[in-house]
Amino acid sequence: MATLGLIEYIDASPEVRAVYEDIMATRKTDWINNFWKALAHDPATLRRTWESIKTIMAPGALDALTKEMIYLAVSATNLCAYCVASHTAAARKAGMTDAQLAELMAVVGMANESNRLAGGYQVEIDDRFKT
Amino acid sequence: MATLGLIEYIDASPEVRAVYEDIMATRKTDWINNFWKALAHDPATLRRTWESIKTIMAPGALDALTKEMIYLAVSATNLCAYCVASHTAAARKAGMTDAQLAELMAVVGMANESNRLAGGYQVEIDDRFKT
Amino acid sequence: MATLGLIEYIDASPEVRAVYEDIMATRKTDWINNFWKALAHDPATLRRTWESIKTIMAPGALDALTKEMIYLAVSATNLCAYCVASHTAAARKAGMTDAQLAELMAVVGMANESNRLAGGYQVEIDDRFKT
Amino acid sequence: MATLGLIEYIDASPEVRAVYEDIMATRKTDWINNFWKALAHDPATLRRTWESIKTIMAPGALDALTKEMIYLAVSATNLCAYCVASHTAAARKAGMTDAQLAELMAVVGMANESNRLAGGYQVEIDDRFKT
Amino acid sequence: MATLGLIEYIDASPEVRAVYEDIMATRKTDWINNFWKALAHDPATLRRTWESIKTIMAPGALDALTKEMIYLAVSATNLCAYCVASHTAAARKAGMTDAQLAELMAVVGMANESNRLAGGYQVEIDDRFKT
Amino acid sequence: MATLGLIEYIDASPEVRAVYEDIMATRKTDWINNFWKALAHDPATLRRTWESIKTIMAPGALDALTKEMIYLAVSATNLCAYCVASHTAAARKAGMTDAQLAELMAVVGMANESNRLAGGYQVEIDDRFKT
Repeated sequence: MATLGLIEYIDASPEVRAVYEDIMATRKTDWINNFWKALAHDPATLRRTWESIKTIMAPGALDALTKEMIYLAVSATNLCAYCVASHTAAARKAGMTDAQLAELMAVVGMANESNRLAGGYQVEIDDRFKT
Repeated sequence: MATLGLIEYIDASPEVRAVYEDIMATRKTDWINNFWKALAHDPATLRRTWESIKTIMAPGALDALTKEMIYLAVSATNLCAYCVASHTAAARKAGMTDAQLAELMAVVGMANESNRLAGGYQVEIDDRFKT
Repeated sequence: MATLGLIEYIDASPEVRAVYEDIMATRKTDWINNFWKALAHDPATLRRTWESIKTIMAPGALDALTKEMIYLAVSATNLCAYCVASHTAAARKAGMTDAQLAELMAVVGMANESNRLAGGYQVEIDDRFKT
Repeated sequence: MATLGLIEYIDASPEVRAVYEDIMATRKTDWINNFWKALAHDPATLRRTWESIKTIMAPGALDALTKEMIYLAVSATNLCAYCVASHTAAARKAGMTDAQLAELMAVVGMANESNRLAGGYQVEIDDRFKT
Repeated sequence: MATLGLIEYIDASPEVRAVYEDIMATRKTDWINNFWKALAHDPATLRRTWESIKTIMAPGALDALTKEMIYLAVSATNLCAYCVASHTAAARKAGMTDAQLAELMAVVGMANESNRLAGGYQVEIDDRFKT
Repeated sequence: MATLGLIEYIDASPEVRAVYEDIMATRKTDWINNFWKALAHDPATLRRTWESIKTIMAPGALDALTKEMIYLAVSATNLCAYCVASHTAAARKAGMTDAQLAELMAVVGMANESNRLAGGYQVEIDDRFKT
């Protein structure tokens, strides 16, 4: 169970409810996932984290799907079970197909492999990559 | 220096040269970066790794730029200096702009942060994410 | 289930019991958590690990609570579910409040984010930091 | 070299200068370290990251030194060379002694060891830790 | 549950069945573990991953048991619960005794500890190690 | 440079010299590498770490070479540059050939890849692996 428990909307302070409402409005959903309910014990961190994610994940030079797939790639690399579950759902909602998921995971696997080959063989950075 | 040293084209066996040539032809470049030269002491691993990367990074359900950015996201998460350097170059060659790089890094940073908040607060996976 | 199973006090050899007793006496508890019961299959590692932790976690230049919070920060960074659970309990026993837990996690999250921004942007170490 | 280069104060836009000035005023220093100069190519991320760090690292339920030591513990765990260098300096400025540094590192090392023993032996979370 | 579900032999395409059969023949078992059933949604990755593992794990300059123990050491370091479980089983099948498992874990723990001491103290690489 | 500097034999206290001498005698060398010189500022941690490594790395159910290769596998996985350098040297001294190094790195790379595929696809642990 989450360390400090989960705060449901009905039990939340006005400050926390305002964040929950913005999450639901922004994501066009009618529920709040556990991550936010666990953070709600610290309203300042809840608000700051949500504002940051909202800003960072909004479409810009990269579209929303690409951003969600990058988020999932990081979560898989870190073996964060919660984050893989939640961001797989988020990426699918943003349009990720099964074929895209499969290619994403193939890249994630390969990158994790070659990262260790580069480190394990003590490969020096090429001069051409330094500028 | 790379553990086993770097094998230059001129010193390479026909088997290694064949891989180098395929790398250069596929990537439309006239040089080989150190990663491959370090792996060349083990021609079987060199060939297998190259064939895997060639297959995985080819455009499919995801385009080449998206794949390179995912590779870079993993490398930054793992703090692999060589791989960040080489895949920043590769992503740029595939068209990544400075604005895209900045957004990519913002997502990578945020994902690494929220991964630890989820783990640190022991957040349970929502039932809705389990199917 | 733990790979080699868990060894309960009643089933333990005198050597293992001696460690269990020292753990309970040092921690002023009347039970042993699973970590030690799993390690008990290797009495030498059990003893060495316990002696090291006992020494390292004793108050010194840093107080016991600060040490427990650092332990928790590392465990959250590594996404070690067992260790987050056990060291959250230990830190609370040492006096950690909910407010301190929340600030700890905010720092852990931020550090994990900025670590990747530093690596992802290939930031060089400032000369002033080198001495 | 940092991927996008470093932006010096003299070359910075008013928006970036404002952040630099707040960093120097808050930290009571007259210089900006490379991390911020590298981020300055993305003024929105620069501002957001700085505002988050400023808020998170301000004394609260935990004092400034404890927070800096937690930051350093995470950076050492992630083997982030830049962050270890910069946060060792920051922790010292906040008052960390050599003896405290040594104890901090001993805890970091031990936690990283026991995290893998817990995972490697597949230790289950004790029921007592679940509430 | 696995993101895309698990594909049982009875439901598998001829291409997937061929891989399953090779896995069972090579490993001299009559069942397929979940890892492969989850990957089977992407037959190309299934085949490539299996061919790579089959090649890499075959006895060569290192015997099969040593290779399985190295695989387990990496999985414990990454805190990959699935991989620790499956490769503990594989290593045992290859002959790993409980005493060997215990020594393996002791080395894994120690290496994870000293890795962070080296990084945390910013230890420079000795010249003698550079050639 | 190492955070607290390096303590040479000539400048060391009798307590530190005793550890240095035991390191050189045990390893049959006439020099001390930087890791120990950096730790020497904290004689208790120096002694404890050395005693642990000496015990753990001594031949037992696993031979010295296997242990050194496991150490190197962990260090490559963590991308610890210092540790890869020092344990590559140690493994070679223990008899590791170039062919063994290459196979070791191939396994390390593959394990890091499949760890993320298992996590990324959210593969559940097979019942057969649970006992």
